[in-house]
Amino acid sequence: MKSLQDLIQREGVYLGRGILKVDSVINHQVDATVMLEAGAEFAHRFGSYEPTRILTAEVSGIIPALTTAYALGLPLVFARKHKPITMKDPAFVEFAPSHTKGGEVSLMVSSEFLLPTDRVLIIDDFLATGQTIDALARLVQDAGATLVGIGTLVEKRFEGGRALLEYLGVPIESLVIIEALRDDGTIVFAE
Amino acid sequence: MKSLQDLIQREGVYLGRGILKVDSVINHQVDATVMLEAGAEFAHRFGSYEPTRILTAEVSGIIPALTTAYALGLPLVFARKHKPITMKDPAFVEFAPSHTKGGEVSLMVSSEFLLPTDRVLIIDDFLATGQTIDALARLVQDAGATLVGIGTLVEKRFEGGRALLEYLGVPIESLVIIEALRDDGTIVFAE
Repeated sequence: MKSLQDLIQREGVYLGRGILKVDSVINHQVDATVMLEAGAEFAHRFGSYEPTRILTAEVSGIIPALTTAYALGLPLVFARKHKPITMKDPAFVEFAPSHTKGGEVSLMVSSEFLLPTDRVLIIDDFLATGQTIDALARLVQDAGATLVGIGTLVEKRFEGGRALLEYLGVPIESLVIIEALRDDGTIVFAE
Repeated sequence: MKSLQDLIQREGVYLGRGILKVDSVINHQVDATVMLEAGAEFAHRFGSYEPTRILTAEVSGIIPALTTAYALGLPLVFARKHKPITMKDPAFVEFAPSHTKGGEVSLMVSSEFLLPTDRVLIIDDFLATGQTIDALARLVQDAGATLVGIGTLVEKRFEGGRALLEYLGVPIESLVIIEALRDDGTIVFAE
């Protein structure tokens, strides 16, 4: 998606150790117009798989997941990292390592919002190591629902997440693919 | 806003002690179409105050704030509760008590995303005690920016947040106002 790639090209800052700062685009400040466009693009790429629900993880994943849900006219469910007092048991719980904060995070979804009859499209901001998305896929499995696809705004291809998720046997679509981050600060995009 | 009030009427569950469960509408599952409509309504109510930036707090506030930012063509900034490794110093930091999780949360915004020239519209999901929104208003003040308004999806009028925020001297608009939550489970909406 050219508008998003241009934004990342212009605003992204490579901090070293594989960490790309896109705080001004995705993680802290957000361009809502580009995010609505991203949602429409995911709807275009995944609509034929007939998803019934969009699943993401809080926090930053909520934004592209909301706009995708809007474009497809579907409910969005975001996995919670902390159990709010309003969440009743039993909830589905899976764990994933946190790339940007260290440690491990839990991802929880109430059983009311993932049903065995659901066809689930996972949408997230980043595909890096793939471990957060893998935990979301396990939540889908816990619910006995069917995973139909995975969409991410930005894929850091050099981190291998796509290979990790291949076993799921579903289409994986990223709107912007980064092949490499060079020490001189250059962001190398896939053609 | 009738569509949102109808949703809360149908889906909201009063858990006692002032806690309204709206997990299926706002806090865990989200109706994207109603949220886009809410954003358009906030844009209608606040457009004439000429905001330049929308500010909210993660997590659930991001959703109506994104759709408002979209409707007004403005950037959205969401205050982070945990400092990501991509956030550089100095950041503005304020604290608010957490109503649904207990304890206190910090709210942080990078100084790059709140400028002294900004006219800020705060959008959040709930107006209850008003303390989270008050912390957001202090972030605006820390930045030397101008607060122009406060919009929330749902106001629990009996918790007094509106009175707490009155000193700010800006319009406060809530799309749905709850006057009372009765022990028999009835949600009493303002006319």
